Parts: sequence; structure tokens; C-alpha cells
Amino acid sequence: MRPVTLSLAEIAALCGGRLVGPPDLALRGMAPLDEAGPEQLGFLALRRYVRMVEGSRAGAYLVSAELEEHLPHDAPRVVVDEAYPAMRAVLERFFPSVEESAVVHPSAVLGRRVRLGRGVRIDPYAVIGDDVVVGEGAVVGAHCVIGSGSSIGTRTRLHPHVVAYEGAVIGSDVVLHAGVRIGSDGFGYTTVDGEHRKMPQVGRAVVEDGAEIGANTTVDRGSLGDTVVGRGVKIDNLVQIAHNVRVGAGTLIAALVGIAGSTRIGRRAWLGGRASAVNHLDIGDDARVTFGSTVTRDVDPGDTVSGYPARPHREHLRAQALVGRLPKLLERVERLEAALAAGRPGDVTARSAPR
Amino acid sequence: MRPVTLSLAEIAALCGGRLVGPPDLALRGMAPLDEAGPEQLGFLALRRYVRMVEGSRAGAYLVSAELEEHLPHDAPRVVVDEAYPAMRAVLERFFPSVEESAVVHPSAVLGRRVRLGRGVRIDPYAVIGDDVVVGEGAVVGAHCVIGSGSSIGTRTRLHPHVVAYEGAVIGSDVVLHAGVRIGSDGFGYTTVDGEHRKMPQVGRAVVEDGAEIGANTTVDRGSLGDTVVGRGVKIDNLVQIAHNVRVGAGTLIAALVGIAGSTRIGRRAWLGGRASAVNHLDIGDDARVTFGSTVTRDVDPGDTVSGYPARPHREHLRAQALVGRLPKLLERVERLEAALAAGRPGDVTARSAPR
Amino acid sequence: MRPVTLSLAEIAALCGGRLVGPPDLALRGMAPLDEAGPEQLGFLALRRYVRMVEGSRAGAYLVSAELEEHLPHDAPRVVVDEAYPAMRAVLERFFPSVEESAVVHPSAVLGRRVRLGRGVRIDPYAVIGDDVVVGEGAVVGAHCVIGSGSSIGTRTRLHPHVVAYEGAVIGSDVVLHAGVRIGSDGFGYTTVDGEHRKMPQVGRAVVEDGAEIGANTTVDRGSLGDTVVGRGVKIDNLVQIAHNVRVGAGTLIAALVGIAGSTRIGRRAWLGGRASAVNHLDIGDDARVTFGSTVTRDVDPGDTVSGYPARPHREHLRAQALVGRLPKLLERVERLEAALAAGRPGDVTARSAPR
Repeated sequence: MRPVTLSLAEIAALCGGRLVGPPDLALRGMAPLDEAGPEQLGFLALRRYVRMVEGSRAGAYLVSAELEEHLPHDAPRVVVDEAYPAMRAVLERFFPSVEESAVVHPSAVLGRRVRLGRGVRIDPYAVIGDDVVVGEGAVVGAHCVIGSGSSIGTRTRLHPHVVAYEGAVIGSDVVLHAGVRIGSDGFGYTTVDGEHRKMPQVGRAVVEDGAEIGANTTVDRGSLGDTVVGRGVKIDNLVQIAHNVRVGAGTLIAALVGIAGSTRIGRRAWLGGRASAVNHLDIGDDARVTFGSTVTRDVDPGDTVSGYPARPHREHLRAQALVGRLPKLLERVERLEAALAAGRPGDVTARSAPR
Repeated sequence: MRPVTLSLAEIAALCGGRLVGPPDLALRGMAPLDEAGPEQLGFLALRRYVRMVEGSRAGAYLVSAELEEHLPHDAPRVVVDEAYPAMRAVLERFFPSVEESAVVHPSAVLGRRVRLGRGVRIDPYAVIGDDVVVGEGAVVGAHCVIGSGSSIGTRTRLHPHVVAYEGAVIGSDVVLHAGVRIGSDGFGYTTVDGEHRKMPQVGRAVVEDGAEIGANTTVDRGSLGDTVVGRGVKIDNLVQIAHNVRVGAGTLIAALVGIAGSTRIGRRAWLGGRASAVNHLDIGDDARVTFGSTVTRDVDPGDTVSGYPARPHREHLRAQALVGRLPKLLERVERLEAALAAGRPGDVTARSAPR
Repeated sequence: MRPVTLSLAEIAALCGGRLVGPPDLALRGMAPLDEAGPEQLGFLALRRYVRMVEGSRAGAYLVSAELEEHLPHDAPRVVVDEAYPAMRAVLERFFPSVEESAVVHPSAVLGRRVRLGRGVRIDPYAVIGDDVVVGEGAVVGAHCVIGSGSSIGTRTRLHPHVVAYEGAVIGSDVVLHAGVRIGSDGFGYTTVDGEHRKMPQVGRAVVEDGAEIGANTTVDRGSLGDTVVGRGVKIDNLVQIAHNVRVGAGTLIAALVGIAGSTRIGRRAWLGGRASAVNHLDIGDDARVTFGSTVTRDVDPGDTVSGYPARPHREHLRAQALVGRLPKLLERVERLEAALAAGRPGDVTARSAPR
């Protein structure tokens, strides 16, 4: 994407930052320190990347206040207290969103009684079933397949290759990335005489307003009742949301997470990458599950859990540290045994516990 | 989906349950206790959800015998011994499957020598290669791409966006969900002078009769020989089945599982969500791999394994419990050392092992 | 796929192997020992499969020198030092690649200013945006969607259902399997007043020459700057490469791996199946991350790490072994306590450490 040109003063104004250097310095876009060229704004917000300042060719910097001292003292810069909101404000101006023309491509296949709001865009080869409603200003990407009876809210954007099964409910201001599947059948069978018979999956899949779901993520329909991705929930790529899961408003779920059937996640929770949870659990509001952890019991609101199986985070860290020290512990037990066997208990000396 | 109306007596008859309450009470569909309205049948089969009885607005209940006592004594209900088969029987009547018209959509692209059985439905924009055979009554969803020389059995249903590579063999009564990939190349390279050269992947991918495969799951073709998903196997979403894996009949594989190359899984095995297995293993008939476990050695028939790396389940539980008690064990060693160092072995008292 | 016929002498010549048996024996393709028929070459390179020799019906064998003794002494065979490169050479002759006709299917939708090199093939229903460049001899599979401003190098092959977002850069001799997503938005939000606001994702996704990416894998675009899959990198199915990750040339990444944002992986590294790494790490050249491990700290070049969280491999193995022996260690501590409590330290006997 090609950025527009902004002056350093405009950048400082956009994010309420302190300007150091020539106000009319012209900049075209933003880049990490090691990639920025002389016309670009370099971005420094993490101590980890201070080491890249030396080789940086950036024309100016957007820097968080506590790292300013690591820049050359004469480097043109905008200094801010909170770097990420500032970055967001600046990027939105460097890369203004492009108006796309609202057209229903002639190759799109529309079912009966489809209702399209004003300004809807339907891209090539989209296939839309009967009785579907698409809200004002929504975009249905190329090759999307929308099952009969589904609804899509206003301003929602479906990137190419999204599939919504029959009866999916997708709110307003939602973003679904390429390859997302909404409303596929849950994994439910009952075994009779050694044969797995499919449990009809007759519930709905509901994605509430403002949610965003990453590429190739799957959200199954409810078995009975609904699977719900709540308001403003953000889900990364390749995540599995099983039948009847409910994800509370504002929760963040990173890539490759798997949530098994009927588990309920509260509001504003956070699940790190590749975390997972077994079925029929309650994970409370504001809970945190760290990267790669496997939750097998309910998690109280506000708790942070880690490990396999997940335990309170501090407990997990302490246990992990002790596992690392097992060889030493074994040696100490051997020394005790040897001293006692030799009849010389005095050979043992007391030690304080490792922390 | 809109359910038909059934009376409480009809419901009792359908699942062989005991009727309590007015036989002609009309119900429209089924829902979890906390979602069911006064025209719906609430479903109660797990003790965990007894707490939801109090607030439930369900018009009647389908309840397993051992939980009946938790319902209000005058609640209209059908009481059954096995709740899930009953649920299945009732749901199939509430939501009878709709006859879909058998049509080859004019936008479908068919190769040469394609043979379509009677009553086949091909949806918009499906692309079918040369020499493909599609059995009677099969459904090929919108946008599916079926490689040359593939075969699809009778009554098999491909949801939208399935891709089968060249020469895939898909049996009868199979269900493939959106985004399933059958017969993609396995991950096989041989490294010559530091360059990874691709090993030709010339085997087949075979999905046997009655299998069901979840959304965005991938099944690679064999390198030499076949990759086989056996008869009646059920696989959930986002699972990876590598080249030359063989999954025995009736095995269940939950979401996000990964099975590495050439591993063989027996019949009626069960792999919990996010489990995985390294390559060239044998996992026996009726084996169970618990949620999130990583199998690195052969598993004997009937065994249950857990953990990373997976061990016999009981051993794993015991080791996990002991890891949690490491801080205490460390304290005991310290106490021993202190007592001996101080020349007062009598300070130590014997304790029985924690179980 | 149907193999051509080769004589045993031709096979020996192709891979520089030693011929034992009739030079003109005709063979049609290659198969694992337990699947090969009398017209096929059986393949034996792993000790694990020696047990299958007895029942094998293969007409001849391709065998590595150290396993030759396990074949019947009169079995026709080609004996080689390195079995996998030999297998590759033979397979490429059994299954010569088929010339496909270079055609732009009339159903393909091409944007403005699209430039197609000589011999490009575009399959049905592909949708190509404005200003896209497709190099000589490239293949764009059915239903692929290529965003505006993207480029695809010479001889690159996109299997069906690939989506490249706007501005993707895909090199020459690249293979992308079905369902690959290149350049989807990274998972970046900044939270203001409890609401997650999307960080514009304005960087590029770059796939360098000779890379191959497996089915349903996702590669996000950079937030600022680029996400890069380096030259000759091979990635398996269902892998997540987050924004601003850089994967060095020649690295191998197995299925279901997840690499979080901004982590850099060196050259010639190896990540086993289901491994993962948190964000902002450096994983050095030639590093190895074993199957299922979770990397939470930088990894030095050449190191092998294992476990959750990943530690040096030997340390991990030793810790794992000790965890398995915790019940025994506990008993020893109990014995010490009992002996001291009873005032009979002599009851304890010294033991050497378990290895």
C-alpha cells in the first residue's frame, strides 16, 4: 500500500506527541527501525529493539518517552507516552481507507428473497442462498458462500472465501478473514452398537457486532442453542470454536487456540496462542490463559493460568523451576543417604531453599 | 432451522421414554435449559447443568433418569435412561432433512469423461476434472474443486469449498465440511547440498465409507502408497493427517489434532482435542490419547495415554500431582539436612506418603 | 497417478545403485513393502519396517545397504547408500510431470493492467485484481483470488483456493497448496477505554523463491514492514506465521506450528510438528525445536530445544526422566525421615544416582 505524505508537525499533532526537529520534514509511511528508509518514520516502543537504533536509516522517529534517550540527540522525532495508540493514529492517516465502489458483480449467484442494503458490494462468484439479508455498506468478498437464511450486518466485511452455513447470524462492523467457516457442524455423535451416529446440529452460530475473526478459523454452529462470538471479540487465525461455546464481549483469542464444546469464556478474557480448553468449562471474566496452556478446570474471574494442565500462573512457574532443579534435589537426597549410611550425619550441611 | 411441532406423547414414543405431564403438550424444538422458551423442550443430561433448572423457562424437559429429581416435581417431562440417543431421535424428528433438488448448476465446469450418478447435485462454480466419477445422490457444494481421476461415492456430501487433489478416493455416505483438503502433497523432502528437494508424492488419499471430516481439516496424499481415513471415522475441524497415515475404522479424532507421517492408528481409538503423534508410530485399537497430549512412542491396544510426552494415564496423573507437590518435598529434604547438620536427627518425624 | 514402466537396470542406473537380479525385470511404480504388488518396486529404508519383508509381494526392492541382509538372498533389488535421494530420482522417472496446456480460462476475472507472462495458466473462476504481475509459466489454480498489486514469480504454482491479499509478493518456483492465505491482517489491536481498536496492518507478506507452503496455512502481512518466508523454506499444513515474522532461507516448519508476531527464525532451522514460539524472539540459524515444544526465550544458533517451556534438549530429557521417577524419590525421602525418626540412621543405605 502506498502511504500519503505527512510532515513531522502533522504527525506530532495527530498523536499529541512532543516534536523535536524540523516541523516541515516530509515523511512517507512508517517502518520498523531496521527497515525504515530516509523518507520514513521509524517506530521504537520496545526496549528489545533499542539495539537497532545504531544502524537505522529512518528519517525521523516515533518513540515512546522512556526510550527517547537511546536515539541520537539530534534525531528528528515525535515523543509520546503511549506508543501504540499513537502508531495507530499515524498509520490511519498515512494509509487512508480507499472508497470501493458498491457493485454486485454479475457473476454473483443470488437466491430467492435476498435483501441487499444500500451500498452493498458483492464480489465475483459469491454465492448467496435464499432469504439472506445483507446490511447497508457490507462487503461480501469473492467466492464467499452464504447459506440460506443467514444475515450479515451493516458495514461488515467478508474477505474472499468465507463460508457461512445455513442460518448464520453475523452482526454489524464484523470482519471475517479469508477461509473463515461459520456454522459448520459440531463434533457430536452418539455411539450405538459400535457405530457413531451423528447428533443433528440444529443450533445457530452467532457473531456479534464488532468482532473480527482471522484466516481459516472455524466456528461451529450450536448443537442445541447457539454458539456465540461476543461483541468486539477478536480472534486470530486457525482457531477452533466448538459447538455451544460462548465467548464474552471484548475477549481476545490468539492463533491456533482450540475451545471445546459448551465451554463459556467471560468478557475481556485473553487466551494466548495455542492455548486450549476442554469442554463444559467456565472461564471467568478477565481471566488469562498463557501461551500454549491447556485448561482442564474452571478458571475464576481475573485469574491467570498456565501449563498442562493449567494451574495458577505463579504455582506453575514455581513448579517449572523446581522441575529444572530436580537433578540437584536428587543429589541432595543421595548425599543424605550416603552420610547416614556411613554413620556420619555431620557431613550434611543445612541449606536454604532455592527460590 | 425451523423445527416442526411434536406433542410430548410423540416425543416419549420416539425415544421410548417415560411420560410425565400432559400428553398433548405441543413443543417446537429443543434447547439447552438456559435458552429454552415455553414452547421448547429443555435438555438435561449432565449434573453440571442442574444449577440451570431453577431459571429455566422450558415448557417441558427431556431428562436422564438419575437427574429427574432435580426438576420441579410437576414439570412436564420425558424421562430416559440414555439421554443422548434419545436426544438424537427427537432432534431428527424436530428437524426432518429437506429434500434438495438434484441439479447440475450451469456454472459448474465439468471435465471430459465425467460420470454423474442419478440424482447428483452440483452447486454453482464447482470445478470437476477429467475422468471423475460421482455416485448416485451425491452433493458437490459450491466452489468445490475435484481433481482429475477422483471418485466420490453414493450419497456423499461435500460442503462448499472442498478441494480434492488428483486421484482422491472418497467413499459413500461421507461428509466433508467446508475447506477440507484431500490429497494435498505430504511434507517430504530430501536435502542435497543444503537444498531441500521435493520427494514426489505419488500415493493416494482414501476416505472410506461413512467417514465425516470437519471444516478446514487437511488429509495429505500418500508419498508411496495410501493415506487412509477408515470406515466410519469421524474427524473434527483443523486436523492434520499427514502422508501415509492410516486411521482405523470407527476412530474419533477431535479438533486441532496432528498425526505425523506413516503413523497408524487402530480401530475405535479416540484422540482428544489438540493431541498429536510423531511419525512412524503404531497406536493400537481402542487406544485413547487425552486432550492436548503428545504421543512419541507406540501405544498398546486399549491403553490410555496422557501428557507431553504421553505416558500411561495413571502414571501421568501421579507425576503431575507430584510436580505440584515439589515445593513440599523440597522443604522435607531441607528439614532433614537441617536436623542432621544440627546433630538432632530426632527433630525429624516420619510421614506417610501423600497419595 | 499412473507410473511408466522401468527396468531394474534402468532403476539402478538412475540412482547409482548396485543391481542384484534380472536387469530387464519390468516394474511399474513403487510402494511401501506391505502394499507393493509383483509389478512394483518395494522400498525399504527404515529398520522399523524390516518386519514387513516377510509378507511382502513386491517384485523387486530398492533397499539401503545396511538393511539388504534382511531381504531374501535371491530377491531382485537395487542397493543404495542413501535411500531417500535414490527414491526421489526413481519416482521422478516413474511419474514424469505432465505438460499442462497454458490457457487463461474464459471464466477467470482479470482486473486492469494485469500482466501475464508467456505460458501462464489461469484456471476456472480465478479472480485477479488490478496491477497484478504473473511470471512466465506460472499456474494460478481454480478459484484463487489474487489481490491488487500482487506479484507472482515465474514457474510458481498456486493450487486451487489460494487467497493472496493486496500487495502480496510471491517469488519464483514457489508452490502454494490449497487454502493457503498470504497477507491476511495480523492480530494487532490497541485497547482504548476497554475497546480493542484495530492497528492498521500496512506491511507486506513476502514469499521468496523456491518456498513451498502446505494446505490451509496462513501467513499474515506485516504490521509495519514485511513478513518474510525466506528462500527455499518449506512449510507444512495448518501453520500460522504471524505478522512481521521472518523465516530464514532453507528452514523447515512442520504441521500445526504457530510462530507469534515479530519472531525471527534463522536459516536452515527445523521446527517439528505442533511446535510454537511466542512473539519477539530470535531463533538462531540451524536451531531445532522438537515436536510439540513451546519456545518462550531466544534460541542460540545450532541449539536443540524441547518441552514446555522449551529448554536445551538434554536438560529437558533429564528433567522428564526425573519427573517419571518422582514417586521413587518421594519414597527415599520418606525412608530417610522414618530412619531418623526411629533413631536408626543406619537403616538407610547409600545408592548411586539413577541415570
